[in-house]
Amino acid sequence: MSQTDPKNKTFPALPDTIKFNQDGLIPAIAQQFDTGEVLMMAWMNANSLSETLATGRACYWSRSRQAFWRKGDTSGHIQLVRECRFDCDGDTILLLVDQTGPACHEGTRTCFTRHLDQRGTVGSAQTAFPLGREK
Amino acid sequence: MSQTDPKNKTFPALPDTIKFNQDGLIPAIAQQFDTGEVLMMAWMNANSLSETLATGRACYWSRSRQAFWRKGDTSGHIQLVRECRFDCDGDTILLLVDQTGPACHEGTRTCFTRHLDQRGTVGSAQTAFPLGREK
Repeated sequence: MSQTDPKNKTFPALPDTIKFNQDGLIPAIAQQFDTGEVLMMAWMNANSLSETLATGRACYWSRSRQAFWRKGDTSGHIQLVRECRFDCDGDTILLLVDQTGPACHEGTRTCFTRHLDQRGTVGSAQTAFPLGREK
Repeated sequence: MSQTDPKNKTFPALPDTIKFNQDGLIPAIAQQFDTGEVLMMAWMNANSLSETLATGRACYWSRSRQAFWRKGDTSGHIQLVRECRFDCDGDTILLLVDQTGPACHEGTRTCFTRHLDQRGTVGSAQTAFPLGREK
């Protein structure tokens, strides 16, 4: 059985209200639990979601490597999961995490450091956080 | 040319650093700009992203209806875009929006109202926001 098969579930079993796509994956947003900063978005299969719940450490599925991606195993920049939420359609996960160090492989706290303006021009987000209250 | 074809771009043109998937879509996270609450995740094609930038109102692509989905056209619950960010891989959009009323069709402010515990049991998130600081 393929590791991307959503039926290939480890403990804990997942409710049927969680919907995986045709590749057996679901998008997972990681948000810093206390500041609200959106850190990154990655993908999970059923096994990595179960592993995340069971261990309390965010574990994703690397589509490029087709392998588990336990955040921080290489970099040390782990994500401790405070809470796991999902949406009304059951097709997106929201993890409230406590991120150690930068979430991004570029060394920034968040992966969302680029800005796209009304003309489609790319720039740097002036402040990654707190959010701009006036534009 | 299909409306899901990322080459079918309206004004403004998008930079090549924005990567659409094989269906010509990119996931877009909507976050309330001042509170940091993650409201929803939906999909955009190139046209809907360009439309979002040009008009300052969040416009998604409905995969179920295969049509533009200008948030709030039916419900009145529009999203005014304060800023458009994207991530290091160029494959996820983060919109900082000012949401009018509930973002969710269920009438809640956010779509992320379900909680998944360590045993895989579904519950209601005790507080949609602010984020739980202690678990």
